[in-house]
Amino acid sequence: MLTMQDALARLTAYWTAQGCLTVQPMNTEVGAGTLNPATFLRVLGPEPWRVVYVEPSVRPDDSRYGENPNRLQTHTQLQVILKPDPGNPQELYLGSLEAIGIDVKAHDVRFVEDNWASPALGAWGLGWEVWLDGLEITQFTYFQQAGGLNLEPVSVEITYGIERIIMALQDKTHFKDIEYGDGVSYGEVFGQSEYEMSRYYLDDADVAANRQLLEIYAAEAQRLIDAGLPVPAHTYVLKCSQAFNVLDSRGAVSTADRAAEFARMRRLAGDVARLWVARRDEQGHPLGLVPPLTPAVAPAAPAAKTNPRTLVFEIGTEELPPSEARTARDYVQRALTEGLAGTRLEHDEVRVFATPRRLVALVPSVAAGEPDHVRQVRGPKVGAPAKAVEGFARGQGLTVDQLLVAPYGDAEHHVARKHEAGGAAAEVLAPVLAKVVTGLRGAKNMRWNDPQLSFSRPIRWLTALWGDDVVPVAVGTLAAGRQTRLLRTASEPTTDIGSAETFMETLALSGIVADPEDRHDLIVTGAQDEVYPEGRIDVAGEAALIEQITYLVEAPTPLLGTFDESYLSLPDAVLTTVMRKHQRYLPVRSADGSLLPMFVTVANGPVDVELVRTGNEAVLRARYEDAAFFYRADRNTPLPEMRERLQRLTFTDKLGSMADRSARIAALATSLAVQLGLSSATLGRAARLVKFDLGSQLVTEMTSLAGLMARDYALHAGEPHDVAQAVYEAELPRNTGDDLPASIPGALLSLADRLDLVAGLAATVGLPTGSSDPFAVRRAVLGLLAVHRAHPALSGLSLVDALRTAAAQQPVPVPPTVIDSAAEFLARRLEQALTEEGKPVDRVRAALPHYARPSVVDTLLTQLDTLVGNPDFVAVAAAIQRARRILPPGTPAGYDPAALVEPAELALHEAVAGVKPTYGADLAAFTAAVEPLVEPLSRFFDEVFVMAEEPDLRAARLGLLATVRDLGEGLLDWPELRL
Amino acid sequence: MLTMQDALARLTAYWTAQGCLTVQPMNTEVGAGTLNPATFLRVLGPEPWRVVYVEPSVRPDDSRYGENPNRLQTHTQLQVILKPDPGNPQELYLGSLEAIGIDVKAHDVRFVEDNWASPALGAWGLGWEVWLDGLEITQFTYFQQAGGLNLEPVSVEITYGIERIIMALQDKTHFKDIEYGDGVSYGEVFGQSEYEMSRYYLDDADVAANRQLLEIYAAEAQRLIDAGLPVPAHTYVLKCSQAFNVLDSRGAVSTADRAAEFARMRRLAGDVARLWVARRDEQGHPLGLVPPLTPAVAPAAPAAKTNPRTLVFEIGTEELPPSEARTARDYVQRALTEGLAGTRLEHDEVRVFATPRRLVALVPSVAAGEPDHVRQVRGPKVGAPAKAVEGFARGQGLTVDQLLVAPYGDAEHHVARKHEAGGAAAEVLAPVLAKVVTGLRGAKNMRWNDPQLSFSRPIRWLTALWGDDVVPVAVGTLAAGRQTRLLRTASEPTTDIGSAETFMETLALSGIVADPEDRHDLIVTGAQDEVYPEGRIDVAGEAALIEQITYLVEAPTPLLGTFDESYLSLPDAVLTTVMRKHQRYLPVRSADGSLLPMFVTVANGPVDVELVRTGNEAVLRARYEDAAFFYRADRNTPLPEMRERLQRLTFTDKLGSMADRSARIAALATSLAVQLGLSSATLGRAARLVKFDLGSQLVTEMTSLAGLMARDYALHAGEPHDVAQAVYEAELPRNTGDDLPASIPGALLSLADRLDLVAGLAATVGLPTGSSDPFAVRRAVLGLLAVHRAHPALSGLSLVDALRTAAAQQPVPVPPTVIDSAAEFLARRLEQALTEEGKPVDRVRAALPHYARPSVVDTLLTQLDTLVGNPDFVAVAAAIQRARRILPPGTPAGYDPAALVEPAELALHEAVAGVKPTYGADLAAFTAAVEPLVEPLSRFFDEVFVMAEEPDLRAARLGLLATVRDLGEGLLDWPELRL
Repeated sequence: MLTMQDALARLTAYWTAQGCLTVQPMNTEVGAGTLNPATFLRVLGPEPWRVVYVEPSVRPDDSRYGENPNRLQTHTQLQVILKPDPGNPQELYLGSLEAIGIDVKAHDVRFVEDNWASPALGAWGLGWEVWLDGLEITQFTYFQQAGGLNLEPVSVEITYGIERIIMALQDKTHFKDIEYGDGVSYGEVFGQSEYEMSRYYLDDADVAANRQLLEIYAAEAQRLIDAGLPVPAHTYVLKCSQAFNVLDSRGAVSTADRAAEFARMRRLAGDVARLWVARRDEQGHPLGLVPPLTPAVAPAAPAAKTNPRTLVFEIGTEELPPSEARTARDYVQRALTEGLAGTRLEHDEVRVFATPRRLVALVPSVAAGEPDHVRQVRGPKVGAPAKAVEGFARGQGLTVDQLLVAPYGDAEHHVARKHEAGGAAAEVLAPVLAKVVTGLRGAKNMRWNDPQLSFSRPIRWLTALWGDDVVPVAVGTLAAGRQTRLLRTASEPTTDIGSAETFMETLALSGIVADPEDRHDLIVTGAQDEVYPEGRIDVAGEAALIEQITYLVEAPTPLLGTFDESYLSLPDAVLTTVMRKHQRYLPVRSADGSLLPMFVTVANGPVDVELVRTGNEAVLRARYEDAAFFYRADRNTPLPEMRERLQRLTFTDKLGSMADRSARIAALATSLAVQLGLSSATLGRAARLVKFDLGSQLVTEMTSLAGLMARDYALHAGEPHDVAQAVYEAELPRNTGDDLPASIPGALLSLADRLDLVAGLAATVGLPTGSSDPFAVRRAVLGLLAVHRAHPALSGLSLVDALRTAAAQQPVPVPPTVIDSAAEFLARRLEQALTEEGKPVDRVRAALPHYARPSVVDTLLTQLDTLVGNPDFVAVAAAIQRARRILPPGTPAGYDPAALVEPAELALHEAVAGVKPTYGADLAAFTAAVEPLVEPLSRFFDEVFVMAEEPDLRAARLGLLATVRDLGEGLLDWPELRL
Repeated sequence: MLTMQDALARLTAYWTAQGCLTVQPMNTEVGAGTLNPATFLRVLGPEPWRVVYVEPSVRPDDSRYGENPNRLQTHTQLQVILKPDPGNPQELYLGSLEAIGIDVKAHDVRFVEDNWASPALGAWGLGWEVWLDGLEITQFTYFQQAGGLNLEPVSVEITYGIERIIMALQDKTHFKDIEYGDGVSYGEVFGQSEYEMSRYYLDDADVAANRQLLEIYAAEAQRLIDAGLPVPAHTYVLKCSQAFNVLDSRGAVSTADRAAEFARMRRLAGDVARLWVARRDEQGHPLGLVPPLTPAVAPAAPAAKTNPRTLVFEIGTEELPPSEARTARDYVQRALTEGLAGTRLEHDEVRVFATPRRLVALVPSVAAGEPDHVRQVRGPKVGAPAKAVEGFARGQGLTVDQLLVAPYGDAEHHVARKHEAGGAAAEVLAPVLAKVVTGLRGAKNMRWNDPQLSFSRPIRWLTALWGDDVVPVAVGTLAAGRQTRLLRTASEPTTDIGSAETFMETLALSGIVADPEDRHDLIVTGAQDEVYPEGRIDVAGEAALIEQITYLVEAPTPLLGTFDESYLSLPDAVLTTVMRKHQRYLPVRSADGSLLPMFVTVANGPVDVELVRTGNEAVLRARYEDAAFFYRADRNTPLPEMRERLQRLTFTDKLGSMADRSARIAALATSLAVQLGLSSATLGRAARLVKFDLGSQLVTEMTSLAGLMARDYALHAGEPHDVAQAVYEAELPRNTGDDLPASIPGALLSLADRLDLVAGLAATVGLPTGSSDPFAVRRAVLGLLAVHRAHPALSGLSLVDALRTAAAQQPVPVPPTVIDSAAEFLARRLEQALTEEGKPVDRVRAALPHYARPSVVDTLLTQLDTLVGNPDFVAVAAAIQRARRILPPGTPAGYDPAALVEPAELALHEAVAGVKPTYGADLAAFTAAVEPLVEPLSRFFDEVFVMAEEPDLRAARLGLLATVRDLGEGLLDWPELRL
C-alpha cells in the first residue's frame, strides 16, 4: 500500500523531474499553500518559477477535534507552481497521478469548473476542481491576479488535497486510518495534535490575546512595508491572517471587524506585492525573464483545387465550463456564418458543436474558390487636371489610355476597372477562421501562455481542414493542422485527420460525441437503462442537471452506483442536494416518487466501470456520512443556540450579521401583520425563529437547504407544525417556479425577508444592472411580487410602503430616491413578469400604476379580460381617453354648470353628477357606476363642440370633460389601454 | 552534480527506508529541528519513534545580510530521530552519507566529542560533531533529557547541516553559489529573503512589538498548560523563543531579561513535557511501547585446557572523548589487576591500551586454571550438642565421621575440610571481566539502549579470548565473542580473532595502532616527515594538541595541507587558534618560528589523501575567510563601539553584563593604583578600554583570543603601545604557565579582573569544589597569586583587602564569611603552588600567614633558604617555638621586671628590652635584631625553672617568655618551622 509519506515523496520527485524546485513549507501558520512566498510572491513579476512543496494548511474553522472523518484543522496540501504555463499542464498533472499509481485510463478523471478568488489577497484565477471518480482531489488554477496585480506571465497553480487522495487510494473512511508511514496511521501520528489544536481554535484561544497579536502583526507588516522589505512584511501579513482566523473560529469576529480586516489585509498584501515586484526589478530579476513564445507560422497554402469540399474547424480547449461551452458554440456559429458571408465562397449551412474540450464547426460544400470578380476604382472627375488623372492611373498600375469613364452621382469620373481572380478556399478561409478564434470571449476570461488570446479556458490546438487540405490559420502561438486530440486516455491521444469529411467519424470512433443533443440523449437513455426496471430518472425535473452533465463529458458513460439504505433516513432534499450540486449525480426514484438508494453518474470515456462505480460510491458515502454527522449534531442542538450562531454570519459589510437581518425580518413581518390585522401566535413564534437554520451545520454546508432544514429541525424540536411551516415558507420562493408560501405567517415572513434585502442592498450595493446580481436582488423582487399576488388577503399591502418601513430599519440611511428607484425596479419586473405570462401589454401597462399591490394588478387584469368585451366599459374608457387627448394637460376638473347651454352637455352634466365614485379599484363596480354616462357621452361628443369661442362656455365644457376623465383616475393608466 | 534539493530527497528516502516517518518542518519559526514537536515531544515517554524531516532553522543572531559566505539567518537542518537507539546508529548514519554520494572510505569521517545542552529546554545529550575531512557536517547526540525529564528510552538525534555538506560536495565557497536545484543557485532562490530577514532581525524589528509578543506568547503558553493542552502550549513556547531571539539579535535583551526569560522558557518547556507524557499515558501510548532488549546469554564455557595462554579483553565503544579514553584505560588497568588478584589464576603483567573506539587489556600467560585448593569450614565447638554437629556435617555433605577437629583461637572446633578443584581460566575470568565492564564510568555518563550500562559513550561489543577460547562474559545485552571490529571503512569491518595471541597483530594488520604511545610517535614522526625539510612541528609546544589527536584516531594518517599565503597577514594567534581549537591541525613553523602557510592534519585510516587534503584545505580556507572577514570588520569598528557591545554580553545572571564587569575592573584597578601610588595615564586609558575586544566579532568567535586582539585593535586604532599592552596584559595569565603582565598597569588590571571575578562568583555561584569550576575561579586565584608574586612593586598590596574592595563593588552583597572563605581558598592555593614548586612544606606553612601578599611569602621563603643555616636564627626560632610550647595559650606578654630574681633571667630581660622591633616582615633584619638574645636565651633555658611555685615570680617569667615569643609575632607561623 502506498503510504501518505511515500505519496508525498513520489509527487515531489515527479515534479522535480519536471524542473520544479523543492522548497519547504512556510514557517509560520498559513491557511493554504498559496500563501507561501514560493507562490504568493513568486507568481508576481516576469521571472520564471517552477516549484513543488508540501504545505500543512491550517484552517482553524475546520477544527472538529479529529472527530469528523473528512475534516481537519490542519490538512496537507501539495502545491505546484508552473510559471509560465508550460502549454500542457493538464497532461503533466495527469502524469503526476500516474506517478502515485493512479491509472488515469481506468479511473474517471475530470476537470470540473471551479474558479478561485481570495479577496483578502487581492488574488483570483480560473480553473477546475479535478475529480477522481467524483472525488475532488486537486485545485487546478490559472493564477490571473495576486496582490491586486495582473500576473504576467500567468502561473499554473496545482494544489493537491493529500489526505483525500490517500483516503481514496487506501480505501479509508476516516482520515485517522490513513496509513501515514509503514504500519503507522495518521491518527497515531497527528491525532493528538488534531484534537488539541481543535481545542485551541474552538475553545481555548484567548480572544484578547489574539486580537492584540493581530494588531501587532499588522503594525509590524506596515512598518516593514514602509521600510521597503516585502519578505518579512509578507510573513507578518500571514501572521495577521492566522490571528484573524483564530479569532474567527472562536466566534470573535464582528461584521465590522471582518470587513475592516479583509480590507487591511488586502491593502497590506497589495503593498507587499508591489514592493516585491519593485525589488526584483531593482535586482535585475535574478532568475531571468520568461522568454516570449514564438508566434506560430501558418502552414503553407495548399495547391488550388476545383471541387467543393467540407470545411471542418475545431478549436481545442481545456475543459470549458458548461455555460461557457454553450455560449461559445453560439458565438462560433454566428461569427463563422458572418465571416463566410464576407467572402464570396459558396457553402452549405454552418453547423457548430461543443463539448467541454472542443468547438467544432462543420460547413459542407464549401466551394474550392471564390468566383473571379471585376473591381471598379473611382478616379478624378472628368475634367480634373491631367496631372491628377495621370497620378491616378499610375497608382492603379495603368496608363491613362486604359482608364474608363463612369458616372458617380451627378458627375462623370475616370475609373480603373480591374479583373481580380477569386481566392482559393484555403486562403480565403484562413483569415475568417483566425478572426473567429481571436474573437472568442467568455463571460469571465483568462490568459494563459498566449499573448494574443484570452478566453474562458486555454485554447490548445486548432484543427482546420478544407477537404484534404489544412487551412493555413495561425493565431498567436497556435498554427492549425490536421491533428486533433481525442480523449486524453485514448491509446493514441492525438490523431491526424485525413479529410474534413472524416472528421466527425474519427471523433465518433474514439467515443467522442461532438453533438450535445446526441450526448443528451445518450445520457438520458443510458441512465434510464442503468436503473431499469425499478428506478426512474426524472428527466424533466433534472433537466438543468442533465444539461450540465451534457457539457461535462465528451464520451458519456452513465453508470449506476448505490448507497446504503440507511441514508434514506436523511431528508430527501439533503440526499438530492448532495447528488446534484456536489456530485452531478442523477437521483433515482421509484414509481411512487420516493428516492431509491442509488444514483447515476456519467463518466467520461471508457473507464473501468467497477472501479469508477466503487470510487463514486465511496465519495457519496463520505458525503452522506458528513451530512448525517451534521444532521445528528444539528438535531441535538437547541434552536436558540443555532440562532445564536447567526451573529457570526455576515450578511454584508454594511448591513450587519444574519442575526441582525433575521431580527429586522421578524420586526418587519410583525409590523406588517399589525398593519393588516393579521397578527397571530404562529407568526410571533415563527418570527423569533426565522432563518435560525443558517446557524446549523448542515445548512452551513449546503445553503440551498435553508428553510427545509429549519422546518425539519423545528418539528424535531417540538415546535407546532404551523410555526415550522412558516419558518420554512419564509424562504419561499427560492427561485422562479418554486413553491410559494401557503400560510399568511409564511407569506409575511417571506415578504419581510425580501423587503429587507431589497431595501438594504439598494442603498448599499445598488440595484442589479445587466447580468451582475451577486445578492440576487432580482430574484427577491420577483419573490415579493409572486408572494403578494398569491395572497389576496395581502392585497391591501403596498409593497412600496412596506419597502419604506423596511428601509427605516436598515443600519444605513436609505434615501427616498433609492426607494423610488427600487419601486421603479419593482414596477418594471412586474410588467415584465405579466407580459411574459402572456397578458396583453396594453392592459398590463394600464394596470401597472397599482404595481405596489400586484394582486390588485392581477384583479384589474382579470376584470379587463371581461370588460374589454363590455361596450359600456369600452365607451367610458374611450371617452376618458378622448377626454385626455382633448384636454390640455393640467386641466382641472370642476366647472360652472350655469355656463353650459347645450342639451347634450347638460345631460352629461346630470349623468356625471349622478355617478357615485365608490368603486375603489374595482373595474366592474366602476363600469356599473359609470354605465349611466354611456349614452350622454355619446351625445355629447356627437353634438357639442368643446372648444367654443366663448371663454366661459369653453371652460365649463373642458371642466365637464375633465370631471369625466377623473372618474377613472387612479383606476388605470387609461391611455395605455387599447380599445 | 547533486543539487541541494536532491540531497534532501535522498537523505529523506534513505531514512524512510530505515523505518523513519517523514514529517514537515514546524509551521512556526524554530531555531533548530530539535524544537519541532516531532523531536521535542516525541523523545519523551516510552513510545518508539523514528522520524526524518527538514527544518529550516532560524537564528536571528546569525543574520549577516547574506554577505558572510558561511553564515545564514535561516539554514537548513535535516533532522533524524531514532528512538530507541537501534544499536548501530553510527553505521546507519554513515550509510546516509553514502546515499548522497560521499565515499566514506575515501574521506576522513570522524566523530569528535561534542556534548549538547539547551538550558532553555531543560535538555541535554552526549555525542559528537561528525567531521568530513575536517568539516563539521552533523551533530550526533544521544538525547538524555528533555524538558527536565530523563529520557527512557534514549533517542539518537542526528542533525545534518545541509548547506555546509552541500558546499563541500559541490566545492562552493559561498552558500549563495550552492546549486539548489538544477541550474538554480541558492542565492537566486533565497538570497533576497536572506538579506531582508537579516534586515529585520538586525535593524528593523520593532523592539516594543516583539517584547509585547513575547509576553503574549508566554501568557498563552501558560494558559494552555493550565488547560492541559501540551501541543498548542508547545507552539507558544516556540514562539516565545523566536520572539526572544529577535529581541536578542536587536540587542534589546538585558542581563536580567535573559536570565528571567531562560528561566521562564525552561519552566514552560518542562510543564509542556510533563503534560505531554501524562497525555500519552492517558491515551495508553498510541504508538505502543519500546520492547525491552533481551539480556545477552554468555557463550558456553570452553573445554578445560592445560597450558597458560594470553588473555585479551576488548571493550568496543563508540568514539570516546580523548580524556575519557585515557581515564577509562587507567580504570581498566586497575580494575582488571584487582579482579585478577581476587582469583588464584597465575598471570603476567596486565597491560591496557586505549583508542577512541576500544579499550584493550592484554594479560600474557594466564594459567589454564586455578590450582586445586583445600577449603576448611569451621563447625561447632568440640563439645557442642550432637545435633548441632550432625547438622553441620549434613550441611557440608559429609557424615559426622568425616569431620575433623582443628583449633580456632582458644577453642577446638569440628571442621569440614574439602578439596576443591581450581576453576578453569575461562570460567574464572568471566565474572572478573564482567565486573570491569559494569564498573566503567566516565566523568559524564550517558545511557543508550542497554538498561544495565552507563558510560561516556555506548559500549557496542566485547571481545574476550583466553588463548583460542572465548571467555563466556555477558553484560547487559552484550555477550563477548571472538569477533572484533576494525576500522569502519575496512573492506571487512568485523573479523574473527583466532587466538588471543594474534589479537594485536590483527588490529595492526588493519592499521589500528592500539598503543597510544605508538600512535603518538607515529603522529609526531609522520607529521614531521610531511613538513620536512622546510617546516618544523613544535612537538613540545603542541604537546596537548598531539595528545588529543592521539586519542582522536586509531590509525593515524598525518597529511599535509597548505593555505594561501595571504592569510599569513592575520595575527599568528588567530591562525593557530583556528588550527588547534577548531580543527586539531598542527601548525607548521619555519626555523625562525614564523608560521608557514601549511598545516598537518591526522586522518584516521587509509583515506584518499588527495581528497582529504583538499577537503581540509577548503575547511581551513573557509574558516580563515571568516576570520579575515571578522578581522577586517573589527579593524573598521571604533573601539568605543566594540566596548559598547559589552552591554549585550552577560557575565552571569546576577553579576551583570560584561560592560558592568569591565567598569568594575577599571574602578578597582584605579583604586588599587591610588592606594599603591602607582596611578598613571597609561592605566587610566587602559582601564577605559579593558575587555573591549570581547565586543569584537573575532573574539566573539574565538574567545581565547581575548587580549591579543585587544592589543592588535588598540594599536591599529592608534592607542599608545603601553596602553595596548596593558589591555592585553589585563588578560594574563590565561592559564598555568602563561605569560604574566610585565607592566604595572597590566598587572593592576589583571589583578582587578581576577579579584572582581572571585569576589562576585564566590558570593553567587560559590567557590569551586572538586573538579567543577565552570567559571574558572581556581584559575583566577592562581592568576592573582602569580601576578602578585611577579611584581615586587605590588608587595604592599593585600589581596584580601583588595578582595574586600572588589566585594564592595559587586551588584550583590558579599558577606564577610564569603571573603573569609575566599581568603582561605587563596591561602590553600598558595600553599599548594609553593609546595608544588618544591618549597619545603614546613617553611611554606610558616610563611603562609602572609598569603594575602604572596610576594612577601616568596621573600620570606628566600630568606629562610639562608637563615635555616644561621645558628642565631635557629636559636631564636627554637626559643620562640619553645616559648610557645611552654606558655599556656593566651599568656600575655609583659611582666614586672622587679619580680625577676635569677641572673639568667635578668640578663634575658635586658637583652629583650634592647631589641628594637623595626624589622617588619624582613627575616634577615629580624635575625640581626634578635642576635643579642641568643646567648641570654641559652642561659635562661639552662638555668631558670619557669614554673616557679611563687606566683609573682612565675608570672614574671612567663611574661618574659611571652615577650620573647612576641618578638616573632606576625613574621612566621613559628611552630610550623622545622629547625
